[in-house]
This record gives sequence, structure tokens and C-alpha cells, in this order.
Amino acid sequence: MKFKERISLLVKERKSLICVGLDTDPDKIPDHLRSADNPVLEFNKLIIEATSDICVAYKPNAAFYEALGAKGWNTLKNTIKAIPDDVPVIVDAKRGDIGNSSKMYAKSVFEYLGGDAVTVSPYLGEDSLAPFFNYKEKFAFVLALTSNPSSQDFQLQEIGGRPLYEIVAENVQKWNKNDNLGLVVGASHPDKIKEMRNISGNLPFLIPGVGAQGGDLEASAKFGTDNGKSIALINVSRSVIYASDGVDFAERAREEVQRLNRELSEFDIFK
Amino acid sequence: MKFKERISLLVKERKSLICVGLDTDPDKIPDHLRSADNPVLEFNKLIIEATSDICVAYKPNAAFYEALGAKGWNTLKNTIKAIPDDVPVIVDAKRGDIGNSSKMYAKSVFEYLGGDAVTVSPYLGEDSLAPFFNYKEKFAFVLALTSNPSSQDFQLQEIGGRPLYEIVAENVQKWNKNDNLGLVVGASHPDKIKEMRNISGNLPFLIPGVGAQGGDLEASAKFGTDNGKSIALINVSRSVIYASDGVDFAERAREEVQRLNRELSEFDIFK
Repeated sequence: MKFKERISLLVKERKSLICVGLDTDPDKIPDHLRSADNPVLEFNKLIIEATSDICVAYKPNAAFYEALGAKGWNTLKNTIKAIPDDVPVIVDAKRGDIGNSSKMYAKSVFEYLGGDAVTVSPYLGEDSLAPFFNYKEKFAFVLALTSNPSSQDFQLQEIGGRPLYEIVAENVQKWNKNDNLGLVVGASHPDKIKEMRNISGNLPFLIPGVGAQGGDLEASAKFGTDNGKSIALINVSRSVIYASDGVDFAERAREEVQRLNRELSEFDIFK
Repeated sequence: MKFKERISLLVKERKSLICVGLDTDPDKIPDHLRSADNPVLEFNKLIIEATSDICVAYKPNAAFYEALGAKGWNTLKNTIKAIPDDVPVIVDAKRGDIGNSSKMYAKSVFEYLGGDAVTVSPYLGEDSLAPFFNYKEKFAFVLALTSNPSSQDFQLQEIGGRPLYEIVAENVQKWNKNDNLGLVVGASHPDKIKEMRNISGNLPFLIPGVGAQGGDLEASAKFGTDNGKSIALINVSRSVIYASDGVDFAERAREEVQRLNRELSEFDIFK
């Protein structure tokens, strides 16, 4: 089954849109895990064990693993391996380079790491992303409108009367010949999620920025899914994985995902 | 000495603008090296040994190492370690993420790998790049106009009558408070290199696309340096490192850099 179908199935079964962001910072790991052989991997495994039956995807951010060097790269691979096969993994890598190099990045994410999906950055245009799109069984979320304040620097600048992120969204639809593309749309722009859904047809959205970044869960869920008609994954990272810094961290992470799922259940989006 | 000063010095001393791109593809390594313990590292070391006194920088592209997983990450670190201290290293990573994550990428590139400079992608705006800029002793080249055909998809789109890449260049000048920023400007747009130099003040340029990608050496050198008044690094990768696939590959790589240096010497840019 392909990524989109797998997500659709899990959304229905679990009545959840929650993607757990595994952005594990070694400095924020509970004390009692620090003596483990590989504290980050141990932490991730316990988070996964506690949440893998109630979320619909995981999204490790490559930055947090790269910062740990070769060992971190192994930790990322082993984290992905520890995720049950039924839950898809999005490698949050925001890669984008000329074709020759992007081919290598795609190989890294899909073949070496074994990710099911990836995030990519559109600045270099179609030929820089085609090496990702060409993995027909895999999936790529293209950055359109991000959740950070400086998204206004370029993404909100108008080209022919429309913001750059809309031009990106329009292009992604054109590029979507293998039906394996989606968009990243930040939760910090709730009004714009609605507009984006209107102009993006049925493209799956990945919505970061709920939780620590203060994005709006209700708007993200209702507008992102067009009231349950499209796919929108809501990524939550820090507020889940660091719900507690004590021995109960995994249990508290599970409770936080359950709380988010309960909130989602009030929005009438699971048909 | 900071990156800019180190480059200026080498340009003067060596009468070269050549940055050797270490985009080493294991499939393109000469047969006689394949039995080495780490063929990519062995290949890189021999290329470095053969060229480190006649070029002004090296630029390994992270993609080629990531594709080899944790081992590749070690190879990248050890490649950088093998480069003599007087020749600066640009890690071509094209990273860019929200601040929290970019901080980790900057740590990876500057602290773990030990790079002197990095390439970054501007799509997420200033706060996504600040973690790189904040390493005052290091340097960052921001993608403005890239050498691939699809650079037209977004970079050439007009915002208020000016192409996006010019808006990026303008912002980079504004962000350059630590005097440690430059621009990536592809050699496949020779006319635009001239315009970019006119609007970018004295910002150092990194110019990829000469060689295998067909960019124009003379226009890149003359326009990029404003006839010797500014810094422009001309990156050449495949045409140098794969100059031969025989046992003479390193010798031929050296000859190719020497040939490029001789060509550069005809343009009256070394004052």
C-alpha cells in the first residue's frame, strides 16, 4: 500500500491526524536515560512504544541526528527501524539540490534510512525535486508555507498578485504525476490553511507548528482536511516528546497524544 | 583569520579562483582504488594531495556522503580533516529549516564536520539562517540563482518587477551584520552574474556550474570578481575529479586545475 492510502487507513481506524515529531535533543532527555548505551535511541524507542497505536505517522527531523555525527546517523536509521511497519515515517530533511545531488539525497532518505516520505525545499525548482518524486512508492511533502516568523521574507512575497507559496502549491499540483506529492503548510497561519486547501485540490498537507510553536489545532484540522475530505497530518513534537522530563515521560507523551486525539474528535472530521 | 580573508590571500598567492568540488560518487572511482578500505576517502585524499597547493577552496557536497549512511558521514568528516589547514572548506549542504532545527544543522556542519563555510537555502527566510550566520568565525553562502534549468521555476519569478533571486540577494546584504555572508550564483547565467555583482556590493560569490554543467569560465571570473575587485569562487567538480578514470586520475585532476588557472590568468583579474 502506498503512503497516502496507509495514512488514510490509519486516520480512519485511529481517528487521529497526529504525526509525532521525533526531534530528540540529547540535552532534553530525562536523567534516568542518560546512562543508556544510546540515550537518544532508547528515548525514541520508548516514545514509539508508548504512542505507535494512537498516532498516524512519525516525523524524525534529520537535523537533530546529524548534529550527533555518524553515530546520530545510525541512531536515525535505527529509530526508523524501531517504528512498527504499519505506521509511516516522514524524514523531515528539507533537502533540495541540483538533480545530480538530489538523487543522492533521495537515495539516502528512501534507501539507506528506509523512510516512507520526505520533506523537500522548492527553491531550486522541479528538476531538483524530481529525483524524490521519481520514487513512485514513496512520498514527498514540498515546503509551501512554513510556521516560522520569517516565512514572510520570501514565501509571502507576491508574484503577479499571488504569494510565492501559492505559486509553489500550484506547481506541486502540476508535478504530481505519480500522485505522491503533498505540501507543508504551517499551523501558525490558520486563515491561509483554508485558502491553501481551496487552491490545492486534494493534496495531502503536513501541518507543523501546533504545540510549542503555538499553532491552532482546530483550524489546522478543519481547514487542513476540508472537514474530513482530504488528508492533513498535524505534526506535534516538543509538546509530546517532552511532556515530562521524569521517568513518566513516555506515559505522559501517550497522554498528550490521547488528549490531542480527543480534541480532534470534537471537530467532526472523521467520517 | 576569517574565511573571507583566507580566500583573498589564497586568490592572490595562487592566482586562482578554483574551488574543487568533492562530489565523489563511489561508482565513478577508478577501479584500482576499489579494493581500498574506504575507496571514497582514499580517492578524496589523493585528489586533495594533488591539488591542495593550486586551488583556493574545497567544496564537498553532503549528498554524496549521506547516500552512504553513517559510514559516509565519517568519510565526509575525515575528508575535511585531510584538507590542509590553509585551504578553507565549504560544506555544500543547502540546509534551511526553522531556527530550532537549523541550529542543529549549523552544529553539524561547523562543529562536528569542522567546515569553514556552508551553503544554505533561503526559502524559510532570515530566522532559519540566523543560526548559521551567528557563527561569526564561519561563513555562509546563501542560494540566490542556481545553475540548474529549473532555477526559472521560482528564482526568476518577478516580485515587484524584480526576480526573486535579486530579492534574496538584497536581503542577504541586510542580514550580513557579521560580514560572513555570500551568494551562490550559477555560472549558467553569465549575463545575470554581472547584474548580481552590480546589486550585491562586495558579497563573495560561489559560482557552481562551470565544467560538466557547461557554464562560462570567463564571464564567471570577470563578472563574478568585478574584474578582480571582489571575491568569486568558481567551483569545478566532475571535470576535475573525474578527469581520468585510470591510475593517473589525481595527476590529471591537477592538470585540469592548472589548465583552469592558466585560463583565468588571461582575464586580467589578479591585481
